[in-house]
Amino acid sequence: MRVLIMGAAGMVGQKLLSRLENADTGLGNISRIYLHDMVPANTASWSGESEVLVGNIAEAAEMQKLADLKPDLIFHLASIVSGEAELEFVKGWQVNMAGSWAFLEALRQHHEDSGGSYVPKMVFTSSIAVFGAPFPDKISDEFLCAPQTSYGAQKAIIELLISDYSRKGYMDGISIRLPTICVRPGKPNLAASSFFSGIIREPLNGVEAILPVKDDVRHWHASPRSAAGFLTHAASMDLSVLGSRRALNMPGVSCTVAEQIEALRKLAGNDVVSLIKPQLDDHIVKIVAGWPRNFDTQRSVQFGFKSESSFEEIIKIYLEDDLPKASA
Amino acid sequence: MRVLIMGAAGMVGQKLLSRLENADTGLGNISRIYLHDMVPANTASWSGESEVLVGNIAEAAEMQKLADLKPDLIFHLASIVSGEAELEFVKGWQVNMAGSWAFLEALRQHHEDSGGSYVPKMVFTSSIAVFGAPFPDKISDEFLCAPQTSYGAQKAIIELLISDYSRKGYMDGISIRLPTICVRPGKPNLAASSFFSGIIREPLNGVEAILPVKDDVRHWHASPRSAAGFLTHAASMDLSVLGSRRALNMPGVSCTVAEQIEALRKLAGNDVVSLIKPQLDDHIVKIVAGWPRNFDTQRSVQFGFKSESSFEEIIKIYLEDDLPKASA
Repeated sequence: MRVLIMGAAGMVGQKLLSRLENADTGLGNISRIYLHDMVPANTASWSGESEVLVGNIAEAAEMQKLADLKPDLIFHLASIVSGEAELEFVKGWQVNMAGSWAFLEALRQHHEDSGGSYVPKMVFTSSIAVFGAPFPDKISDEFLCAPQTSYGAQKAIIELLISDYSRKGYMDGISIRLPTICVRPGKPNLAASSFFSGIIREPLNGVEAILPVKDDVRHWHASPRSAAGFLTHAASMDLSVLGSRRALNMPGVSCTVAEQIEALRKLAGNDVVSLIKPQLDDHIVKIVAGWPRNFDTQRSVQFGFKSESSFEEIIKIYLEDDLPKASA
Repeated sequence: MRVLIMGAAGMVGQKLLSRLENADTGLGNISRIYLHDMVPANTASWSGESEVLVGNIAEAAEMQKLADLKPDLIFHLASIVSGEAELEFVKGWQVNMAGSWAFLEALRQHHEDSGGSYVPKMVFTSSIAVFGAPFPDKISDEFLCAPQTSYGAQKAIIELLISDYSRKGYMDGISIRLPTICVRPGKPNLAASSFFSGIIREPLNGVEAILPVKDDVRHWHASPRSAAGFLTHAASMDLSVLGSRRALNMPGVSCTVAEQIEALRKLAGNDVVSLIKPQLDDHIVKIVAGWPRNFDTQRSVQFGFKSESSFEEIIKIYLEDDLPKASA
């Protein structure tokens, strides 16, 4: 089986590669992995054959090249993040929507050219940003998409495209709506959600962190380890069980920023917590106010997706998987 | 005010034009109406200034030309219908999605060029085909979009685009999800829903009509007169009341095919009803099985949208508005 990872240089892409190497994912034999991103992806955690590809997913010609690889399994993790898509409207739509549509069209053409035998499997990382306030206490599997960012609208549109291309049999796709992934290793990024990780990661590394929202903000989290697990589970599933609803809310942990901070205090102490500096940022406050806080993820749990059950557990995973590397 | 109607040659476009001429729509003075479609639109029912434009909405250059008119108010009714979009996949996406996105982009560019002063109002006719089974007894205003046709997916995507462009202030848009419009005057079309009108219209005109589904199929209807009323009401509303949810389920009448037939019997007698010939069509049965049956349209009713309250009333409107013309 030949696998393509789009967005392979990103944090989730790298976690996925490591999981494909180290865990029994039920995916069978992978003969080759194509790693695509804007910058060369690190292949250190993969011992099999690989090919590093660099290019821009906003360009139809680039998407044609990727489709021409005729991968059996595609992990589509590539996008610009919410904060950037909000600031750069045209770029956001080109990268996060137009490129993906061009890719689906190129895949469909290969399906047609093959007489219908080429039906690639695709796992697309969507986001809880497809939802917008007002919300019920818990968002059900039947709640409407009402995005309040361009990023969320772009994700919702690709979900609809993947569902329709799959319904027609051109591909076999699933969109998994990731919780905010926390604790992200590495540096802050332009995502409006970046601080949810920053207030844990920076203090644990002895660095101050800005908290740009009030601590009663409730949000929905899962670890990078869970994100990689969602992806491989989705890839190994028989997707026909999804029927016509191929976008799934992933399980996660609902907690407030105050609860995040208390979990950090319990595991790392007051001195670490004292490195969190509250400083409201209206731009971030406004974006985050439209985001979901809690879910009732019956379908994804029924289909075997698993996450952490407390934020403490999420911090422990950061300590196990990432902190040693950061200080190494 | 300059008004553009896209899809002006179609049945709803013509009903809209007639309503703009004859009813007090609260829209103020219309200095000129641009009537765009694939074929020249009839202007007979409009006594003011008008301009007939012919072109294909799948072409970006055509969309640029329409945006260059800088209309103050746009009624976007143009699409290919569900049955055709299902049979011609590529054409469906080009006409029903790509063209509309190109149009929004061209309007946004005019907004930018005007220093932000040009903010056109747009009323887009979406459809209950954005929904897909399984359904609750009544679909609420917060129920997910899960289209089971390409047409439904295309409508849901344009809704998301219009919401995002409106959120950013580039335009001021609303998407109204029309019930199946019934009784359509004129000839059958390629829409999978065409028979809902055909089984009433053809018998009333002394012609046999095929019923391609079982008579226990329940569906959601409104008259052409209501459709025109929804459009002008949407155009005259202050859309800020919608908040970030700019797609609205329109009110309608929920009834079974058997109830449609009984209403026809009551108004026109057994001889007319005997012209309905049941003949199952698996293609139609399959599409219709995924369609909504009933709604709880709290929001649109709250915002002043009005429909009929029985199918008998819907037939009477056909007799009043359209049958005389058909036999004239």
